[in-house]
Amino acid sequence: MNGVALGEIAAQLGGDLVGDAALRINRLGSLESATPTTLCFIATPRYQAQLSATRAGCVVVPPALREAAVERGAAIVTPDPHLYFARLSQWWVVRTGARPAPGIHPSAQVHASARIDASASIGPLCVIEADVVIGARVVVGAHCVIGSGASIGDDTRLDAQVSFGAASHIGARGIIHSGAVIGADGFGFAPHEGTWIKVEQFGGVRIGDDVEIGANTCIDRGALDDTVIGDGVKLDNQVQVGHNVRIGAHTAVAGCAGIAGSTTIGAYCTIAGAVGIGGHLTLGDHVHIRAFSGVMQSITRPGVYTGTFPIDENANWEKNAATLRHLYSLRNRLRALEKKSS
Amino acid sequence: MNGVALGEIAAQLGGDLVGDAALRINRLGSLESATPTTLCFIATPRYQAQLSATRAGCVVVPPALREAAVERGAAIVTPDPHLYFARLSQWWVVRTGARPAPGIHPSAQVHASARIDASASIGPLCVIEADVVIGARVVVGAHCVIGSGASIGDDTRLDAQVSFGAASHIGARGIIHSGAVIGADGFGFAPHEGTWIKVEQFGGVRIGDDVEIGANTCIDRGALDDTVIGDGVKLDNQVQVGHNVRIGAHTAVAGCAGIAGSTTIGAYCTIAGAVGIGGHLTLGDHVHIRAFSGVMQSITRPGVYTGTFPIDENANWEKNAATLRHLYSLRNRLRALEKKSS
Amino acid sequence: MNGVALGEIAAQLGGDLVGDAALRINRLGSLESATPTTLCFIATPRYQAQLSATRAGCVVVPPALREAAVERGAAIVTPDPHLYFARLSQWWVVRTGARPAPGIHPSAQVHASARIDASASIGPLCVIEADVVIGARVVVGAHCVIGSGASIGDDTRLDAQVSFGAASHIGARGIIHSGAVIGADGFGFAPHEGTWIKVEQFGGVRIGDDVEIGANTCIDRGALDDTVIGDGVKLDNQVQVGHNVRIGAHTAVAGCAGIAGSTTIGAYCTIAGAVGIGGHLTLGDHVHIRAFSGVMQSITRPGVYTGTFPIDENANWEKNAATLRHLYSLRNRLRALEKKSS
Repeated sequence: MNGVALGEIAAQLGGDLVGDAALRINRLGSLESATPTTLCFIATPRYQAQLSATRAGCVVVPPALREAAVERGAAIVTPDPHLYFARLSQWWVVRTGARPAPGIHPSAQVHASARIDASASIGPLCVIEADVVIGARVVVGAHCVIGSGASIGDDTRLDAQVSFGAASHIGARGIIHSGAVIGADGFGFAPHEGTWIKVEQFGGVRIGDDVEIGANTCIDRGALDDTVIGDGVKLDNQVQVGHNVRIGAHTAVAGCAGIAGSTTIGAYCTIAGAVGIGGHLTLGDHVHIRAFSGVMQSITRPGVYTGTFPIDENANWEKNAATLRHLYSLRNRLRALEKKSS
Repeated sequence: MNGVALGEIAAQLGGDLVGDAALRINRLGSLESATPTTLCFIATPRYQAQLSATRAGCVVVPPALREAAVERGAAIVTPDPHLYFARLSQWWVVRTGARPAPGIHPSAQVHASARIDASASIGPLCVIEADVVIGARVVVGAHCVIGSGASIGDDTRLDAQVSFGAASHIGARGIIHSGAVIGADGFGFAPHEGTWIKVEQFGGVRIGDDVEIGANTCIDRGALDDTVIGDGVKLDNQVQVGHNVRIGAHTAVAGCAGIAGSTTIGAYCTIAGAVGIGGHLTLGDHVHIRAFSGVMQSITRPGVYTGTFPIDENANWEKNAATLRHLYSLRNRLRALEKKSS
Repeated sequence: MNGVALGEIAAQLGGDLVGDAALRINRLGSLESATPTTLCFIATPRYQAQLSATRAGCVVVPPALREAAVERGAAIVTPDPHLYFARLSQWWVVRTGARPAPGIHPSAQVHASARIDASASIGPLCVIEADVVIGARVVVGAHCVIGSGASIGDDTRLDAQVSFGAASHIGARGIIHSGAVIGADGFGFAPHEGTWIKVEQFGGVRIGDDVEIGANTCIDRGALDDTVIGDGVKLDNQVQVGHNVRIGAHTAVAGCAGIAGSTTIGAYCTIAGAVGIGGHLTLGDHVHIRAFSGVMQSITRPGVYTGTFPIDENANWEKNAATLRHLYSLRNRLRALEKKSS
């Protein structure tokens, strides 16, 4: 590719272009590694210091940085540079990326009853079982296994080695990264004289539109009804979603978080990295859980919640942790003193 | 399928059937989504309110709910409805499920020295290495890789994309879900002048009968001796089991838990979700660790243990967490006051 | 194999051999399971009691145990038995292990533009995309997928079912275990009116020499620049490394740890099991984080850090945890008492 003129970018994505519209951009990049044919962005005035140091050909900036940006070269001024750059990145990938050709790779094992849109691309060595339905422009990467009866909506992409189990369904424009396992059995057992008797799992997984699912993330099938992931939900890598969990629209869950079975999470929530959420709980809309927290109770009120032990030098931690075991008795001693002194 | 008569269910599974034995059941389901051909269960009288609302054709109930259940339709009365339903679910799957046909899929790569029972089913694109032994009625899903010398006991099922390494052994009636990695190298290094010198791992993984292993769970091979998983153990998804760990019979480990190397866990334990257990520890039988706890010491006494920071609104957490760093000095100040006031 | 004479071991690996140099060793093993043809090691005098009980043919011991070891049979005396055994284990594997034959398995799907060294071994059903470069004596296990443009250095080994994405690079003598996903998209979105707009990821993953990566571990590709893993880094199983993370040379990260995006970790650090490290932080060299800690701030000073709630019997935990929520007010009450009493 011979690059894209700044003028074309501004024409396609909008923004107020200041500078040479004929300047050609070869790459979207970071401020640090930029060259004169790189386009970068600065999200907030906080990073202004990096602006003067970069060699970038053009920088997308918020209005507050217009002067500073123009002083050093071309700029695109827009109220939300991060959002602008996100859209630009998508446009860039479509314009420059090599989409796999439509069709079924000859090495794939496809059941005769599967209905695969002619515009879809099925990668090498995939296994597509009976009655699978695959929509328009879907891309299924190498080595994926799609279980019987599963369906994949238009424009969704599965990277290599995804396991998409029987009775799993995903809507349009989704992305599932490598190693994800959708629709394995939930962890359901009846206790019996100290042993565990398996409860077979009959539910499916129902995933909305515009959902992204990270590498090695697991979403279990429901026990009787479905596990449900709402539209626009984003799950990072190595997230565990138990059976019959319901996640509301546009909630984001960061890496290594785990959500135990039958818990309902509202819409527009953020669950930070390594958070654990117990089973059979309800979190309302707009609940934000900070990293490393363990949630053991339902949370109905919108807000920001934290439950993690503050890190400290080990020597301090040891003293405080030892004392912590006596916190309740400290409280009682304090009460006794208060009574005495009053 | 034209459904199963209630009378046949009661004849096979037991329980006291009250109502029309000829009523046909098409589906096991939840109380909420039930239709008149659905069979449901209620584990305890606590959920009695749901009983009157359900449209289910029949409900499995404990004796305390007999009256209430019968009032609304057919019922099966049994002392432990959850256990009854578990067994019913297994019977249902055998009766209605489509077991894969025996035989080796032509796309599988099977070493000539592997001994595979004629009743076993080897899925598409599997790789079976030298000297593997596979028992009767075993089902190996698509894309599994079975390392040289591994063995799989009768009636065990591996779902798609399981990696079952060399020198791994599993007994009868096991289930391993997709993405699980059994028998990767343990994390063993000798420190040397700030760098790490790999200690090659020679041990295997020995897994008992009736073990279930969740999606993307890892069990490392032992360094010199074997890693050992007892009969009836249940591991949820994304569990990490380090080298030379030993887990006693009928212990259950929930999702995202991690057990570091050379730790021994007793029988009949429950390790809840996201629990971490340090290396070289011993947990006795009947030890129960609640969710999100970190175990840094051996626990010999049966009981319930917890180690997790209580979640709170972030503003409260910040004040308490900051104070926590001074807990030891608070204790000393309290002591000084006590001395003064005595 | 007919075993290896102790004399040959000492000749190859060094150490002071005391005893019969003609004694043949068939196996490296643990003290507990040793037979008269097993060679074992004892790292420190702490384990002296096990020395007298073992049936091992020869034990590698530190100088302090020379007398005790010789009393019971053959011994190799060396200042660091653990290091000696590590090197011996590697020599043993090379001497006795069956390296896969060089060449490309006929069932593998290899793009015509891939450059694969003639001494490399590509396993069954692998997928090697365009422009991949694979070095000398590399072993790629069954079912691996190597994305377009990726490169793998000399003597590196990938076990079965590794996903090694486009624009990922690993140096020499590395090991990647099954299920690892290298080079999936980072978790990058621009928020927009409550929804998440994907930021396409353009960076790669750059991994140094002598790096080991555990089963089901994920390392995301960078957003714009690369994610970078230094020489000699060891990552255990189920570790999550976010986009643009940089890990310095010879740092070890234990199982289930997670490192959020854009964080830099120095050289010679140890990150213990299940540790979480927030995004956009900097940890200096020689920082050691103990198990289950959550790191929410940068740490510049070398040292040992801990942040985990001490485990306790649940009944005690409940009382202490409840009190903990009032810690800040306890502090204020203590202050008031102090003021009163002064």
